[in-house]
Amino acid sequence: MSLPRIAIDAMGGDHGVRTMVEGAAIARRAHDKFKFLLVGDETRIKAALDEHPAMRGASEILHCEDVVAGDEKPSRAIRRAKTTSMGLAINAVKEGDCGAAVSAGNTGALMAMSKLALRTMPGIDRPALAGLMPTLEEHDVVMLDLGANTDCDARNLVQFAIMGAAYSRIIYDYDAPRVRLLNIGTEDIKGTDTLRDAASALQNATGLDMQFDGFVESDKINRGEVDVVVTDGFSGNIALKAIEGTARFVTDLLKTAFTSSLRSKIGFLVSRPATELLRHHLDPNNHNGGVFLGLNGVIVKSHGSANAKGVANAVAVSARLLENDITRRIAADLSELGEDMLKERASSNGNGNGDGAK
Amino acid sequence: MSLPRIAIDAMGGDHGVRTMVEGAAIARRAHDKFKFLLVGDETRIKAALDEHPAMRGASEILHCEDVVAGDEKPSRAIRRAKTTSMGLAINAVKEGDCGAAVSAGNTGALMAMSKLALRTMPGIDRPALAGLMPTLEEHDVVMLDLGANTDCDARNLVQFAIMGAAYSRIIYDYDAPRVRLLNIGTEDIKGTDTLRDAASALQNATGLDMQFDGFVESDKINRGEVDVVVTDGFSGNIALKAIEGTARFVTDLLKTAFTSSLRSKIGFLVSRPATELLRHHLDPNNHNGGVFLGLNGVIVKSHGSANAKGVANAVAVSARLLENDITRRIAADLSELGEDMLKERASSNGNGNGDGAK
Repeated sequence: MSLPRIAIDAMGGDHGVRTMVEGAAIARRAHDKFKFLLVGDETRIKAALDEHPAMRGASEILHCEDVVAGDEKPSRAIRRAKTTSMGLAINAVKEGDCGAAVSAGNTGALMAMSKLALRTMPGIDRPALAGLMPTLEEHDVVMLDLGANTDCDARNLVQFAIMGAAYSRIIYDYDAPRVRLLNIGTEDIKGTDTLRDAASALQNATGLDMQFDGFVESDKINRGEVDVVVTDGFSGNIALKAIEGTARFVTDLLKTAFTSSLRSKIGFLVSRPATELLRHHLDPNNHNGGVFLGLNGVIVKSHGSANAKGVANAVAVSARLLENDITRRIAADLSELGEDMLKERASSNGNGNGDGAK
Repeated sequence: MSLPRIAIDAMGGDHGVRTMVEGAAIARRAHDKFKFLLVGDETRIKAALDEHPAMRGASEILHCEDVVAGDEKPSRAIRRAKTTSMGLAINAVKEGDCGAAVSAGNTGALMAMSKLALRTMPGIDRPALAGLMPTLEEHDVVMLDLGANTDCDARNLVQFAIMGAAYSRIIYDYDAPRVRLLNIGTEDIKGTDTLRDAASALQNATGLDMQFDGFVESDKINRGEVDVVVTDGFSGNIALKAIEGTARFVTDLLKTAFTSSLRSKIGFLVSRPATELLRHHLDPNNHNGGVFLGLNGVIVKSHGSANAKGVANAVAVSARLLENDITRRIAADLSELGEDMLKERASSNGNGNGDGAK
């Protein structure tokens, strides 16, 4: 099977063209059928390709000098869709020239531009941003929405569950990933009406390729007891950043502790393999590949500060979603759900809202 | 000045009577004017007092054998207010027999019983649960609400800000603590209408004893840049548990790393003082003393698993709030705010809701 090309926004992210091209090259070493459309400044891309000769035959360059700024308002960025590397990468997916696009640029702009260009897939009201987070077990946990939709109704949450489960099945070959809704307690009565309605819809649904296990609290996300955590974009963003911030906080404390005396410095040197293991496990580059689910096309967000290895992970994720046709998988589960589900309680505001988290 | 007595629910918590009495005794060593009403099984309390003879003259025992269970529904617990150690401790505050009550029992039950017995103070629509969390700096950050109110309007959030600032001023002697609203971005347009309304009310208020600095994201809670983080009980509970869970996750990883080889085990032993420093900093016993703010009386929640030192911290917090008359401090700021604030947008549902987080 020939895999559709992957468009790379070579200009986005903190580290620029060289890192994006190197990331694509690393991903390609493991899967030499990958082909790329590299979107960005031609001179710089060519210079980067000089270091990865095997990439040259697999890549086409789409020249463009303009880049969406990291702090650019999505409303401004979408007006520059035809001239920016991000906009042109997305457009290549829209035109069917590529199957997926990977960008390390401005998340809000990427979301807004993708939604406008690709539209949501049939049966989905709002796309969501899904991410991977480390656990105590071998595999990461998928969490969504991470900030694309500030307010969500029960119908949105059920759709997020279906999309997250499809994502999890594809990247980890699960048959029926364990899905839970993020809540402030695990008893049935906990939380909001929205959460209880979504839970009862998922409990009553049959034929979905997932195992719905009810609610999960945010201190259990990383325990390896759940494969997909479903939440609205506000709570998801609060949980995501609390996790990131605390991991940084604890490692900062550790650093202070290990440099507080000569004895602890020696201890640190002796135990370096152990702390390296910790660093490796928490390194965001090993969990890279946020995905916008629910669009007519695969859009993967690489972390802005990702190194080449992180970019390679994001590229590999986009290829895997392409190979396994995530859109078709989601559509299959949606059809199992049927039309009537959630019709009574659901509010009808199907349009997304643009002020999500960055 | 003579300090009102402190009621101790001696039966609540994972460790029972001995730990509660020992905690009170430790707190009293630092402040020998503290006097206690110890509520619980008389025989066990007397046995515990035998180990702390100095406590005997400062303590009265209120005998009662019944205890609120850790998993007891708040709706059931409130019907047993006259027979349980928790209910009687709260009642002692209601009757003016004590100024404050400390319990390590069921949080939801404590909240429900306190609200019913003590009622909210004038000018406050809903009480909130405030907690202390470690930061990179010397002082902890106050965060509220941690789960008492699932849904909040802008008026609730403004009141939480005033209550949290008063708490922070009292425990750390701040003149004007730095207050922020928890949000998914720091720009003015981020988040919900409720958050934006609350922010604009706090920005426009004059004469409040706080410095309002806008929004904070949950990865910045622990950086030492903010003294009081204000949020609804749903997001607050999500953030709190994500922080607790991640701290545990990282330390679990560290433990695994340090026992993965002989070399790392030796490194661990050599650097033990450093890891002890980390453990000390993250130990919840050093940040113990969740407070229900906004009631006619001081109710302090000690962590269920707190040791005697943790209980001593909770007792010291309750004494400090009593000495500094937290209720009067909150009332003073409320009067600065004036009546008109938030009148237009605020919804009128002043009654609390009972399904908060445990």
